[in-house]
Amino acid sequence: MAIRIFITGGTFDKEYNELNGELFFKDTHIPELLKLGRSRVMANVRTLMMIDSLEMTDNDRNLISENCIKSEEDKIIITHGTDTMAETAKVLAEKIKNKTIVLTGAMIPYKFGSSDGLFNMGSALAFVQSIPHGVYIAMNGRYFHWDNVRKNKQTGEFEEVK
Amino acid sequence: MAIRIFITGGTFDKEYNELNGELFFKDTHIPELLKLGRSRVMANVRTLMMIDSLEMTDNDRNLISENCIKSEEDKIIITHGTDTMAETAKVLAEKIKNKTIVLTGAMIPYKFGSSDGLFNMGSALAFVQSIPHGVYIAMNGRYFHWDNVRKNKQTGEFEEVK
Amino acid sequence: MAIRIFITGGTFDKEYNELNGELFFKDTHIPELLKLGRSRVMANVRTLMMIDSLEMTDNDRNLISENCIKSEEDKIIITHGTDTMAETAKVLAEKIKNKTIVLTGAMIPYKFGSSDGLFNMGSALAFVQSIPHGVYIAMNGRYFHWDNVRKNKQTGEFEEVK
Amino acid sequence: MAIRIFITGGTFDKEYNELNGELFFKDTHIPELLKLGRSRVMANVRTLMMIDSLEMTDNDRNLISENCIKSEEDKIIITHGTDTMAETAKVLAEKIKNKTIVLTGAMIPYKFGSSDGLFNMGSALAFVQSIPHGVYIAMNGRYFHWDNVRKNKQTGEFEEVK
Repeated sequence: MAIRIFITGGTFDKEYNELNGELFFKDTHIPELLKLGRSRVMANVRTLMMIDSLEMTDNDRNLISENCIKSEEDKIIITHGTDTMAETAKVLAEKIKNKTIVLTGAMIPYKFGSSDGLFNMGSALAFVQSIPHGVYIAMNGRYFHWDNVRKNKQTGEFEEVK
Repeated sequence: MAIRIFITGGTFDKEYNELNGELFFKDTHIPELLKLGRSRVMANVRTLMMIDSLEMTDNDRNLISENCIKSEEDKIIITHGTDTMAETAKVLAEKIKNKTIVLTGAMIPYKFGSSDGLFNMGSALAFVQSIPHGVYIAMNGRYFHWDNVRKNKQTGEFEEVK
Repeated sequence: MAIRIFITGGTFDKEYNELNGELFFKDTHIPELLKLGRSRVMANVRTLMMIDSLEMTDNDRNLISENCIKSEEDKIIITHGTDTMAETAKVLAEKIKNKTIVLTGAMIPYKFGSSDGLFNMGSALAFVQSIPHGVYIAMNGRYFHWDNVRKNKQTGEFEEVK
Repeated sequence: MAIRIFITGGTFDKEYNELNGELFFKDTHIPELLKLGRSRVMANVRTLMMIDSLEMTDNDRNLISENCIKSEEDKIIITHGTDTMAETAKVLAEKIKNKTIVLTGAMIPYKFGSSDGLFNMGSALAFVQSIPHGVYIAMNGRYFHWDNVRKNKQTGEFEEVK
């Protein structure tokens, strides 16, 4: 059965505006990334929002969880900014028990060439096909349970809390 | 516990010789690739050989299986040329039952910039942590059992036999 | 005889800080870029400053012009942010008559992979070897006299004023 | 006035066939490269052939020189494999005196990401606008007269003969 991929923005999809030197969002690069990885996994991609996760509101998180609940697929990947990824995972875990939901992101925009996004999407796709129902974060080649993960602000890496 | 990564060469690690226009092997790029992916998985990398998988002999496959048998880690990734990856998987499956062994590779050399290798290594690392003992091929975002996989020579993609 | 290259910063040398998502300066990438281009031109590279050209002061411009005056080489390239490149060119032209000075820059940081910087440095190096004494801007594959050039803020391209 | 660019193939335009691991020619990447460099030089690009310069025949060289003679533009760039670039330059120099013709190429295919081609095209475009009539090779950031240049087979770099 197909996998569902929800796009919410984050560093993954940021681009460089060469006229003012600022980063901004245009379209998602996830389909392009899946093609580059020669993925043959059936995946239905849908963009829910294109925002920096520091600006994500309760309403945004409700929108994400409603879409997860309504999704026919029980394997769901969510691309998400890394700063509040753990917070969104918590919201989802409280509401959804019967699906495997994997949040992933990137430290470097896909368009900057040396992105970790391709690696992370490869691992998120693999985890979502292999691990039991629950809500997880897939970063740094590992997966973390929603209730035992935080982003280390000094290193930019994800780690267990306990 | 740590994961073991055995390098055998394949397209993954090919480089372009700008003096004669031919492809050749020098050193493996796997450690560099893991760094690019910001992997924090404990991984012990060891190069067994650096060859095109079309030139892999029975002796080479014996060497690989002996190393898998001796490996203390029960989660093993093998980078391998795609052309005879399924053949090596079969040899390993006959000898090794108590480990999770995932073979992976690339269609485009890592050094050529737009490689699928980063994506494949991300998925191989995730699968090896998540699926039961057995011998598998991880390509195209999917995993295949050793006894139900072949490379489609027309598309370059892996598919089930039955 | 050797060419002198003065580094002043600009988009050319900006990097992405993956911890806070901001652009910053570390070291110059010009020597790396020259190596990538297989340049065999004798070039003495010296970093004068590493700043955004919007923040360049009169003092900074004095420092640049003093270094150009003292330079033994009469062929000088200056890497510079594009926003005030024309302003610096004017200051230099008023003080220096007996040298060929070519300012160049980039719209995309070198580290972002798809930079125009490699192209611009190739053309700047070629122009500085071929055109008469004077102060010029080399961008978009063309060269412009210091007194007949502006950056078009809408397109990001350089054009003649008259 | 516009510049004429003739494409003849060479490493510049080689691609990697991921099904058989061999290099081959499809379409030229020069227009894409000029766009990446944000070139605003008026350029008329025409593909004459797509071959490895080791396979270039007298007939091919005649075709190139006829096209140069017929060209209305007196500034001409020719992309060319590096191995016999000097040979073609000699043929052109014997027949054409009233134009500036610059041959250039690459050591690494454009598609492999870390190409010197972007740098070389930047310098070729600059030289062809700035140097007198004659036939030249632009490589390694320098230009060479057709009668005083050879490719050093050991280093892959161009150098004067005398």
